[in-house]
Amino acid sequence: MPSKIGRHEGVLRLGIGDDAAIVMPRGGTEWVLSCDAFLEGVHFLGKLHPPDSVGYKSLVRATSDLAAMGATPRLFLMTLALPSSRTGDWLDGFLSGMGRAARGLGMQLAGGDTTKSRMVSISITVLGEVVGKGAPGRAVTRTGAHPGDLLYVSGRLGRAELGLELMRRGLGREQGLRRLLQQHLYPEIRLKLGAWLAEHCIASAMMDLSDGLSTDLARLCRASGVGARLRCERIPQISISSALSKRLGKPQLDPLKMALHGGDDYELLFTVPPHRAKSLRRAPGSSELTPMGEITTGKRILLVGDDRGATALEPRGWDPFRKKS
Amino acid sequence: MPSKIGRHEGVLRLGIGDDAAIVMPRGGTEWVLSCDAFLEGVHFLGKLHPPDSVGYKSLVRATSDLAAMGATPRLFLMTLALPSSRTGDWLDGFLSGMGRAARGLGMQLAGGDTTKSRMVSISITVLGEVVGKGAPGRAVTRTGAHPGDLLYVSGRLGRAELGLELMRRGLGREQGLRRLLQQHLYPEIRLKLGAWLAEHCIASAMMDLSDGLSTDLARLCRASGVGARLRCERIPQISISSALSKRLGKPQLDPLKMALHGGDDYELLFTVPPHRAKSLRRAPGSSELTPMGEITTGKRILLVGDDRGATALEPRGWDPFRKKS
Repeated sequence: MPSKIGRHEGVLRLGIGDDAAIVMPRGGTEWVLSCDAFLEGVHFLGKLHPPDSVGYKSLVRATSDLAAMGATPRLFLMTLALPSSRTGDWLDGFLSGMGRAARGLGMQLAGGDTTKSRMVSISITVLGEVVGKGAPGRAVTRTGAHPGDLLYVSGRLGRAELGLELMRRGLGREQGLRRLLQQHLYPEIRLKLGAWLAEHCIASAMMDLSDGLSTDLARLCRASGVGARLRCERIPQISISSALSKRLGKPQLDPLKMALHGGDDYELLFTVPPHRAKSLRRAPGSSELTPMGEITTGKRILLVGDDRGATALEPRGWDPFRKKS
Repeated sequence: MPSKIGRHEGVLRLGIGDDAAIVMPRGGTEWVLSCDAFLEGVHFLGKLHPPDSVGYKSLVRATSDLAAMGATPRLFLMTLALPSSRTGDWLDGFLSGMGRAARGLGMQLAGGDTTKSRMVSISITVLGEVVGKGAPGRAVTRTGAHPGDLLYVSGRLGRAELGLELMRRGLGREQGLRRLLQQHLYPEIRLKLGAWLAEHCIASAMMDLSDGLSTDLARLCRASGVGARLRCERIPQISISSALSKRLGKPQLDPLKMALHGGDDYELLFTVPPHRAKSLRRAPGSSELTPMGEITTGKRILLVGDDRGATALEPRGWDPFRKKS
């Protein structure tokens, strides 16, 4: 594992190169740990996705789980399996993208294991610390949503899905469309927002949207033992101009479906008790926060249309084991 | 990720099921982190190795890196990618083996990510704590060996390689030979010895033998900036009876070569300043410790024969990227 990604400072006493890394955590603070696989042929396509995007995204998407708990990223470990044919330029590009992500996120590489395989397979473990002002911070879980809490989301949903569609339809290399690929190739995650919500104890429950709103909201509700009403017209969607729509061709893209079921957005989904909602004005990126429904008793997740009619929202986001129909 | 592997106690505040696990480490102690990949077709064979061995060994071999630092295992995280065809009985067997290993090692599952792939691909991150009596413990690295230090190894080398050969040669199912498969299928690691050596500050450098003595000793020497003289007749080898040799057939196995280059033994290789060597009598499993050479100045690693003639020891252990000759 090349050492250019790792710097030894902060809690990291010894980085890569020995049997294991040595860390001296500060006592009395919560640490948050998560792991994430990123596989060729499942999460990215070797022929379609540039290596620096693979490196960048593999680390950022793993770290999004730390944002979802309100933690500040510190360290990561990576196992990387790849064919010999990918050890040259491809690996250089991969490491350059991952290094850029690590610098942006403020993370150090604490351990690695490189081996050979037929397809590229990346597994990343991330560690973060919940930082509080004065008192120790408190990580935000998925389990604290209560009936009556407002349901918020950051950003607009479906952006990553649009990027993926552009690539699939052969429009990935067009200069004018590059901006639209950004969230798919080099996703931004909501670290500042997550940490702020944790520090100020404003979110009662929180998670990141990795597999699509319909699937992830169902997870949050199940964990909290609640239901939800989602107002269709409030869900922040992408808009597709008629010029772009023409270029994209058939089948036509449906922004609402993309917002409901598209994966890889890494926006934060969180619930807020109504009396705390005003405080959100001071949140980082507050203008990009949208209340799109509320938590209810029961277990049902309903999508409420303009006509006030409600339908059950089926989880139809990303599931690697679902059979294609 | 099934929860039967995880129990929430000790430092683990929240286990699997949320975006991330929450850990509250004690302050002032060193934590040790490592990660390890275990892949079908590279580290094990789907048709040859029973699923409970795959589960058992994948966790134990990752944890051996903690033993090598003198740490006590606490937590692990796993990403598991597997084909749909392996989600039934195979997965049950895998998890049962891994659960047994986790209980034996005193570890809790803190996080997991399961996804689909064509071949089974396991990545494990392990976390351990260096426990000291009174003062905080001190992890043992590879870098502290000095010229004049004695070079020790635990156990006998080549046991895992013998097990692999038995399986390769179709003798894996014979009752009478089962004992010989143990270190290959369900390896034992030297946790107590590693922790004792760290606690009593006896080892100046230490690592575990995963890729073979010739390769791993070269790594330890490189990390410490030293050379070594290894006495051929002192290297603890397996003995192969003539009856077993007959059953094994051709090509004949060479115990010395297996001890020098065979992988997967997970014994500890460590160096001890001569004046500390007496203390080793009190070490856990002290009767299984063998001084087999000494650390020298320079960079050469020499194998000294019975006739006192010395030859350079080439690193010829396991290397996934080496071309087969």
